[in-house]
Amino acid sequence: MTDTPSLPKPSRRAFLRGTAMAAGALAAGRAAAEGPDPLITEVQPWAQGFGDGVDAVPYGMPIHFESHVVRRNVDWLTADVVSSINFTPIHALEGTITPQGCAFERHHSGAIELSKPDYRLMINGLVEQPLVFTYADLERFPRSVQTNFCECAANSGMEWGGAQLQGAQFTHGMIHNMEYTGVSLRTLLQEAGVKPEGTWVYVEGADASSNGRSIPMEKALDDVLVAFFANGEALRKEHGYPVRLVVPGWEGNLWIKWLRRIEVTDGPVEAREETSKYTDLMPDGRARKWTWEMDAKSVITSPSPQAPWRQGPGPMVITGLAWTGRGRITRVDVSLDGGKNWQEARLAGQPEPMALTRFYLDHVWDGSEMLLQSRAIDETGYVQPTKDALRDVRGLNSVYHNNGIQTWWVKPNGEAENVEVS
Amino acid sequence: MTDTPSLPKPSRRAFLRGTAMAAGALAAGRAAAEGPDPLITEVQPWAQGFGDGVDAVPYGMPIHFESHVVRRNVDWLTADVVSSINFTPIHALEGTITPQGCAFERHHSGAIELSKPDYRLMINGLVEQPLVFTYADLERFPRSVQTNFCECAANSGMEWGGAQLQGAQFTHGMIHNMEYTGVSLRTLLQEAGVKPEGTWVYVEGADASSNGRSIPMEKALDDVLVAFFANGEALRKEHGYPVRLVVPGWEGNLWIKWLRRIEVTDGPVEAREETSKYTDLMPDGRARKWTWEMDAKSVITSPSPQAPWRQGPGPMVITGLAWTGRGRITRVDVSLDGGKNWQEARLAGQPEPMALTRFYLDHVWDGSEMLLQSRAIDETGYVQPTKDALRDVRGLNSVYHNNGIQTWWVKPNGEAENVEVS
Repeated sequence: MTDTPSLPKPSRRAFLRGTAMAAGALAAGRAAAEGPDPLITEVQPWAQGFGDGVDAVPYGMPIHFESHVVRRNVDWLTADVVSSINFTPIHALEGTITPQGCAFERHHSGAIELSKPDYRLMINGLVEQPLVFTYADLERFPRSVQTNFCECAANSGMEWGGAQLQGAQFTHGMIHNMEYTGVSLRTLLQEAGVKPEGTWVYVEGADASSNGRSIPMEKALDDVLVAFFANGEALRKEHGYPVRLVVPGWEGNLWIKWLRRIEVTDGPVEAREETSKYTDLMPDGRARKWTWEMDAKSVITSPSPQAPWRQGPGPMVITGLAWTGRGRITRVDVSLDGGKNWQEARLAGQPEPMALTRFYLDHVWDGSEMLLQSRAIDETGYVQPTKDALRDVRGLNSVYHNNGIQTWWVKPNGEAENVEVS
Repeated sequence: MTDTPSLPKPSRRAFLRGTAMAAGALAAGRAAAEGPDPLITEVQPWAQGFGDGVDAVPYGMPIHFESHVVRRNVDWLTADVVSSINFTPIHALEGTITPQGCAFERHHSGAIELSKPDYRLMINGLVEQPLVFTYADLERFPRSVQTNFCECAANSGMEWGGAQLQGAQFTHGMIHNMEYTGVSLRTLLQEAGVKPEGTWVYVEGADASSNGRSIPMEKALDDVLVAFFANGEALRKEHGYPVRLVVPGWEGNLWIKWLRRIEVTDGPVEAREETSKYTDLMPDGRARKWTWEMDAKSVITSPSPQAPWRQGPGPMVITGLAWTGRGRITRVDVSLDGGKNWQEARLAGQPEPMALTRFYLDHVWDGSEMLLQSRAIDETGYVQPTKDALRDVRGLNSVYHNNGIQTWWVKPNGEAENVEVS
């Protein structure tokens, strides 16, 4: 070092101006009375020798200090291989991209291993020419790149019955957001030639569950992608290697993994996964169905129960994610008092359609308790509702499509708890 | 299946209309005479039982079929821990994001392990108040999110002397592109208060090399990020955990990993890494210095020597990456004949400033040899030059800043070779 300053003193400038507590907290967490900080005044071991060379890790993993940032399941809820779910650690992530390695999984008969040589994709039904594609065939078609969120319809489903799970990972972690590359489904359907009476497609996977779902032709010809790559590299096994469907803005159950067949039909198949499941039982005993689009939703990821704020009073970053299946997020509001007062959050970058948007509220915390909430507003003007408003309309029988406003009670010690306010 | 079609026949519609060879190649790679494809007609093992449950991999890795998609080094060139480099497998990636796990590394004394509790960042020199930040302190400041490429100045450096390395990974793989989240350097400098005579910053890392570099204040106050997260998660150890500098559009050597100190100075320090290295020796014996900005550049990633085209004639996808340190890529041209004729490529999505842009040429290949080239054009109007044009100006002494047009000779068998054309 060319200049060793005296022990850092609190600054009263700029960002911290006028917030005396915060300025104190910025002094490297040390009181002057503690004496010099050896991490500053002494040459540390990691500056005295060589680190790892470039042949140490041909494919890297997160550093061991971050070993808590992993997918987690809830034993009693989700760990059966017949029908299994885990959750993205959204409380510990930042920005908008979800790394594949910690992106949530939802399997109906487990994640299968399917090689490219063994891969086939059939298009049949009401087409002029049934076709079977190998992986190498698919590589011939023009590709596009798009970033989209994938949210399980059951995300936040446990919250219909009140605040139950302690952590954004568990309440809102059945979501991920990746940059996909693949071939437009429209291109492949045009290749086979859809007959005039073909108004739907039925899509299924190569796993034992097959997880078949019906999609209206209008959507199939719009923005659906037959994807090979996520975040620049091949899909991981658990995300459908080598080929999955990307259905922007629509519930994750339609995003068929290990995609094996697309049948053009003249109506919905009304398959198991769209009748016994993925419908919403209303108070009058009837069920909403074809509720594909994910409504605008948001959640504060930090602070949250798994991400307490340990720094104490002063400047703090309140941050979270917002998304909508109907285009772009245009605004996110944050409340510190359980929805009585709202202030507009700052959106990071330009929100992309049907993709996660990161929001921030740069706040100076006085150390008193907060009831943190966020509400998303999308380009259609839709405003994320309260949980009670949702229950008034849909009752308590639903499992899916809970996009109600989430509340975290942040206590003076910075810990947070999942609560409901009314 | 509800409908088993007869063996797929070639389609003459849409994308393949009029390309008889291609249509034949699309018939799942099988001649009708070979009989039914058991992958279509028989229920396969992976559809007969359960796959992996969700507790199989808390943090996932690429499937073993993709084990070739890793960082690689070149023993004689790069494997010494004192000064080591490896290369991103760009020939096997798609889209624009580079996963951290296979993003190239360049270390000057190896990758060190530095925990958040042990982390300190000092700002000193010509400031009103020297400061030391802990990691927890940094978490208090407003954050932003931006996607940027990081290219080593020596990327393609071996090509000054002619076509030498066989593969886009080795010729152009000292580049990666990630979504970063962190605090603006401007914010931290404002916190310390830059004195009027403070016109440069000197930045260094916590590793033994320290890798100190000087950056003009104008850039430091512009778009430089003190980053904690890449692609949504914590930086990996080898990418500077817990904090690195992101210097958009400027050579990777400035992107200090394990950032430990920022000294405000009244001029450049002229440190080892910016005098003995990272300057460009010209034919007249003088050296260009402060060549921070990365000029517009592009490369075709597929087909390329490590990514031969195995499908034969017919529709093919020619794809690659383009970037510029001066803003946005506005156009990429592709030549099939070594630069005699050019056609405009299709850009994926909206190019972001100082970020990788993916381009495509959807081509119907007649099976004859090609001399594939791409040239990038950026928003300043700059056009990527030929290697010879570069050599005419800069001679043959340079190591850094080779952004000349790359040529792949694609042979009738689909294999590709690094060649030069004049």
